[in-house]
Amino acid sequence: MASSAAEEQEPTALPPLLLFRRVDAAFYAALRQRYRVLDFFASGDPLPAFLAAAAADPDPPRAAVVVGGGAVRVDAAFLDAVPSLRFVFSTGAGVDHIDLAECARRGVAVANSGRVYSTDVADHAVSLLIDVLRRVSASQRFVRRGLWPVLGDYPLGNKLGSKRVGIIGLGNIGSLIAKRLEAFGCIIYYNSRKQRDSVPYKYFPNVQDLASESDVLVVACSLNKDTRHIVNKDVLEALGKDGIIVNIGRGANVDEPELVGALKDGRIAGAGLDVFENEPKVPAELLSMDNVVMTPHIAVLTSESRSDLRDTTIGNLEAFFSGKPLLTPVLPW
Amino acid sequence: MASSAAEEQEPTALPPLLLFRRVDAAFYAALRQRYRVLDFFASGDPLPAFLAAAAADPDPPRAAVVVGGGAVRVDAAFLDAVPSLRFVFSTGAGVDHIDLAECARRGVAVANSGRVYSTDVADHAVSLLIDVLRRVSASQRFVRRGLWPVLGDYPLGNKLGSKRVGIIGLGNIGSLIAKRLEAFGCIIYYNSRKQRDSVPYKYFPNVQDLASESDVLVVACSLNKDTRHIVNKDVLEALGKDGIIVNIGRGANVDEPELVGALKDGRIAGAGLDVFENEPKVPAELLSMDNVVMTPHIAVLTSESRSDLRDTTIGNLEAFFSGKPLLTPVLPW
Repeated sequence: MASSAAEEQEPTALPPLLLFRRVDAAFYAALRQRYRVLDFFASGDPLPAFLAAAAADPDPPRAAVVVGGGAVRVDAAFLDAVPSLRFVFSTGAGVDHIDLAECARRGVAVANSGRVYSTDVADHAVSLLIDVLRRVSASQRFVRRGLWPVLGDYPLGNKLGSKRVGIIGLGNIGSLIAKRLEAFGCIIYYNSRKQRDSVPYKYFPNVQDLASESDVLVVACSLNKDTRHIVNKDVLEALGKDGIIVNIGRGANVDEPELVGALKDGRIAGAGLDVFENEPKVPAELLSMDNVVMTPHIAVLTSESRSDLRDTTIGNLEAFFSGKPLLTPVLPW
Repeated sequence: MASSAAEEQEPTALPPLLLFRRVDAAFYAALRQRYRVLDFFASGDPLPAFLAAAAADPDPPRAAVVVGGGAVRVDAAFLDAVPSLRFVFSTGAGVDHIDLAECARRGVAVANSGRVYSTDVADHAVSLLIDVLRRVSASQRFVRRGLWPVLGDYPLGNKLGSKRVGIIGLGNIGSLIAKRLEAFGCIIYYNSRKQRDSVPYKYFPNVQDLASESDVLVVACSLNKDTRHIVNKDVLEALGKDGIIVNIGRGANVDEPELVGALKDGRIAGAGLDVFENEPKVPAELLSMDNVVMTPHIAVLTSESRSDLRDTTIGNLEAFFSGKPLLTPVLPW
């Protein structure tokens, strides 16, 4: 039988973990079973005060779990505030909110969600594309408003097969999108930092050239200084008036005001967007457009991927704390 | 130089063609270039009067083009009214509006649209399924109503990969749906009149058994007396509360009141429907359901398939009139 002292001691014996993400009950329980969770959002403290308190802990934290998407930025100031930190896990695939150079300089390992979300994001990209081409959402509004019996046949959409789809970024997600669209008879082109020898698709070193040759552009790259506004006015111009943009990357991969202008003027034909530059704000002009399909950054939101994320997070933390190789390293240690 | 008499005579020299379908200008021009078009919808006459006038023509029609879906039924009465008829072309894939036994008995050949629509319908089925699972349309309404900044993250959807998809009817369309869903990592089961040796998917001779083992049922069969209400109360029960129905076949393949009841009570999880029992009427209860995706029978409506249909129609008519084999025969002659 455990003594009362041992019972009180047990929680503090767990290694501390900084948590910068809201997680569901099962995920939270899995973390608290293994770690002394220092929960930023539950604390209600401003970030500097929260970090200072963590750093002053007798057993200061060596690991942090950070939400993807940039609500909390792991930059030099963050790392300075908790010098004990040696591992940062991002619960997103993108790590644009983590200063990797600063982490490398200080010997802080970084891991991300790996391929947990890749298939869901690829599936969502395909769904957005078919929806725009085939007017699924728009025709559904027609049904829900009771217009079908009044107006009769809905206007024609466009076939997916034989469309030339230019994918920007042929990583995990881009490759899965390509695989899916091949099954629909699409012709796949791509742009990425370098040509990949292992794929049969035509490579375009330049995004504007890719856009000129494509009916559809799918943005599937990560966000960094080279890919910010990779879809700009010139690329939209090259895509042309029958062209469609699908964005499941980051909002800032596309110059949003230019996109809105091109849609308004009919300089491109339509768009399927899961991400926006100033989420959760969506440009008001888009809300009335029938040729735009918009979802609230849900490409990763499935219960299956959420449970996979929990496993991947715990797996990486356990690897870090036991000195084993990380499962999904971005910066190994 | 042609004489005035020859000019007047020329149109009547074209073979007469009964037309029971609204067609676009290009299609109409292609028909009128080759045939003396007797246009039912343009005539404004009731069907019996229209048929009687056609039969009384000095050069009575031997061929008819009939819209798919049953607006005009080619039954014994129709065939009796125009005994000169020897060929009926249906502009749909389904021929449930044509009495094939009566046609066979009278030596009337029948052709349909063949595979013109197959890929578009398969694409649409996939789109409906992803939409229901991933809440694409529902989350879009959330965005368009301005709720994203107010309510934050949208509830989780479900992953497509690893779902067991039971396809009812593994013809052209069903096979194309299977091929597409395999690329998403789905497990394909099917029911059809007989097992197909050439496919690797698990066969269920009984639809209720198929439903018991499936997460999703996709209705992709034609409509006939055996498939009317093939999805009935027992099948919905077997599919169960996490199950999803997708229907791109015919509305009457599903017992619609039972489907509505199962959706209302949460006895199944959702539905993606392009067809309804009493089109263009849609059950009012469905209009407020967020877990139902409804499109107005648009699965075949692309400009590409419309132009393919024109070619297939003309091709079959030319084959008939020149005594060559039909391109896409249902009942050869």
